[in-house]
Amino acid sequence: MARIDVPEDSPFGPDHLPYGVCAPRAGERGGARVCTRLGDVVVDLSLALDDPDFANASLDAFLARGVRHWRDTRDRLRALVDGAIPDAAVHPLAEMDSLLPIRIGDYVDFYASIDHATNLGLLFRPDSEPLLPNWRYLPVGYHGRAGTVVVSGTDIRRPRGQRRTDSGAVDFGPSRRLDIEAELGFVIGVGSALGTSIATGEFADHVFGVALVDDWSARDIQAWEYQPLGPFLGKSFATSMAAWITPLSALESARIPLPDQHPEPLPYLRETENWGLDIAISVSWNGTLVSTPPYARMYWSPAQMLAHLTVNGAATRTGDLYASGTVSGPDPSERGSFIELSWGGSAPIALNGEQRTFLEDGDEVVITATAPGTGGSRIGLGEVRGRVLPAHER
Amino acid sequence: MARIDVPEDSPFGPDHLPYGVCAPRAGERGGARVCTRLGDVVVDLSLALDDPDFANASLDAFLARGVRHWRDTRDRLRALVDGAIPDAAVHPLAEMDSLLPIRIGDYVDFYASIDHATNLGLLFRPDSEPLLPNWRYLPVGYHGRAGTVVVSGTDIRRPRGQRRTDSGAVDFGPSRRLDIEAELGFVIGVGSALGTSIATGEFADHVFGVALVDDWSARDIQAWEYQPLGPFLGKSFATSMAAWITPLSALESARIPLPDQHPEPLPYLRETENWGLDIAISVSWNGTLVSTPPYARMYWSPAQMLAHLTVNGAATRTGDLYASGTVSGPDPSERGSFIELSWGGSAPIALNGEQRTFLEDGDEVVITATAPGTGGSRIGLGEVRGRVLPAHER
Repeated sequence: MARIDVPEDSPFGPDHLPYGVCAPRAGERGGARVCTRLGDVVVDLSLALDDPDFANASLDAFLARGVRHWRDTRDRLRALVDGAIPDAAVHPLAEMDSLLPIRIGDYVDFYASIDHATNLGLLFRPDSEPLLPNWRYLPVGYHGRAGTVVVSGTDIRRPRGQRRTDSGAVDFGPSRRLDIEAELGFVIGVGSALGTSIATGEFADHVFGVALVDDWSARDIQAWEYQPLGPFLGKSFATSMAAWITPLSALESARIPLPDQHPEPLPYLRETENWGLDIAISVSWNGTLVSTPPYARMYWSPAQMLAHLTVNGAATRTGDLYASGTVSGPDPSERGSFIELSWGGSAPIALNGEQRTFLEDGDEVVITATAPGTGGSRIGLGEVRGRVLPAHER
Repeated sequence: MARIDVPEDSPFGPDHLPYGVCAPRAGERGGARVCTRLGDVVVDLSLALDDPDFANASLDAFLARGVRHWRDTRDRLRALVDGAIPDAAVHPLAEMDSLLPIRIGDYVDFYASIDHATNLGLLFRPDSEPLLPNWRYLPVGYHGRAGTVVVSGTDIRRPRGQRRTDSGAVDFGPSRRLDIEAELGFVIGVGSALGTSIATGEFADHVFGVALVDDWSARDIQAWEYQPLGPFLGKSFATSMAAWITPLSALESARIPLPDQHPEPLPYLRETENWGLDIAISVSWNGTLVSTPPYARMYWSPAQMLAHLTVNGAATRTGDLYASGTVSGPDPSERGSFIELSWGGSAPIALNGEQRTFLEDGDEVVITATAPGTGGSRIGLGEVRGRVLPAHER
């Protein structure tokens, strides 16, 4: 039996206890199991808690069991880490591969930061009001491609596509404006039937937890294609999510009121509990911190996003993922995408002695975040990391 | 052993042989099996062809095996129906329920009819050019909600949502402009890896077959929400697909050249084979034929749509569904949605003695289609049928 000592400043202390799916690096993928992480140690929950739901290459069976079971399991897990864990369940992080932790049903991306939506409006539609008339009435969102959500650490192949050049001609080739979007994702644990809705107050009965998301975006492809039906190939080539899902229960101390909303939301969007989240995000580009987006400034809460997503009766399923949209704050240092940080490429960023705008081949981006933990500590969400590979010739 | 005699004018003659998933109406869902249909008889393929891939509640295992296996299986099936079928495999259609035939991965909807895109442009953006600048360069498309695709025959609950009234106020309630879109859907059999593309000439190696689709649309919700990220709640409440998937092999005689495309498509969108399809669609509203959209007039082919969908390296999976977008022809009698047929509600349609614009509770829409079969006959695609239920109070 092992007792795991975690350094006090670890983002993965005993107040965190996120869930992921890991497999021995040298072994077969058949060995994939649901795990938690303590410091730099991975704990195989199928052995540590003797629960067959965890002997899977996905969290889905566990997620489907519901909020009481999630809380009971967290209690058992906390008791376990305060005591001793079976040796066979403990693995050094460096010997494990992390896999995509859920089988994603539908993936929806919102647009819930007023600073991001304003900046993008100014950049994409310079001759109009930046914020469209609907923006303050509803959490604008759209469906993305579930089948191209990849786990943190997966390399990102530069996409090819059509774009319109400055001269107005249409050409084809590797994207020249490859970008990131730093977002927070929300994982549905318990779905809802077709024809029913999820009220804001029912949020925690359905959403299990959160994970950082990088919504890679090819701005040149997006700008040419996106009207009138929205982004398609400019986004669908890859979306990265963190390997570790932080349960909502670990974020109790991060819950805060939303910023003021004007006009007052329609009744179905009103919050009965605080689901603003005081999560501080950091974006590193080739090892240099370039932005610190504050999740606390988001206009729409994740409970409002889910209430909106389902108010028309749309069903949800275990493993559905929805993301906040780019998190940007009002200060230029808080912008969660490079198109904002470089103002459409017109204001290059000093990066390790170079002037840079969009992503070049070989670049690596790492998004991290911290939040107040339940025990007075600070927890750190699982990172989302990706490196850009050159486009294929064909 | 049974020999099944099918009337010569049946849409489900021996030249068709579509695939679906059926279960005995009175029995357990565990009894669901992959079946084909001959006239008004359903044949259980797990028994008739003794193939374990068919002892499933989904076509996915069969689809994943690839185009050679699809063709071999069709040859075996044709030989079987020319001879005698084991009695235990034969069921009257009326005693069987049809289920959703695939587990849908991602669902993408295109916008490939130039007449539909022009009409919608005129109706949604009356002050601008109806066809946006990108439309003739690429097949415009977007992701829809895979988790709310339902099988033909499923009732459709009227969605609730936000809309802007004529006075400019924003209110909430059941949609007042509930509409249909008559479309043709394409089912991916063999997927493609992340970072790779599917050339137009590889279409038939990946797409297994076609099914009619009804993309139910709440026009008032859509009009208010859709900028800048595209349709969301106006579409996500339900999309119906036919219970029977017609394999591409059954449509060899329906293949025709596309209408002229100007400007010439970029190289990755050029067709090396004809994948225009001479399919004649019919839309019935409460039993009255209201439109006859000609699929032959579609501007972009399904091979071009798939080449576009993947040119950025997006992966595809067995069971992915993509649809053509509304099929409309140039004649007013060929419009595939009620917003076009009633010109935004301003020109009501005479229907069974009433003047009608959008769908009322209790209305039923049935979309059918026919195509030249391989043996000189005419085949009829599986219908897509849906009836409107009143919105829920809450």
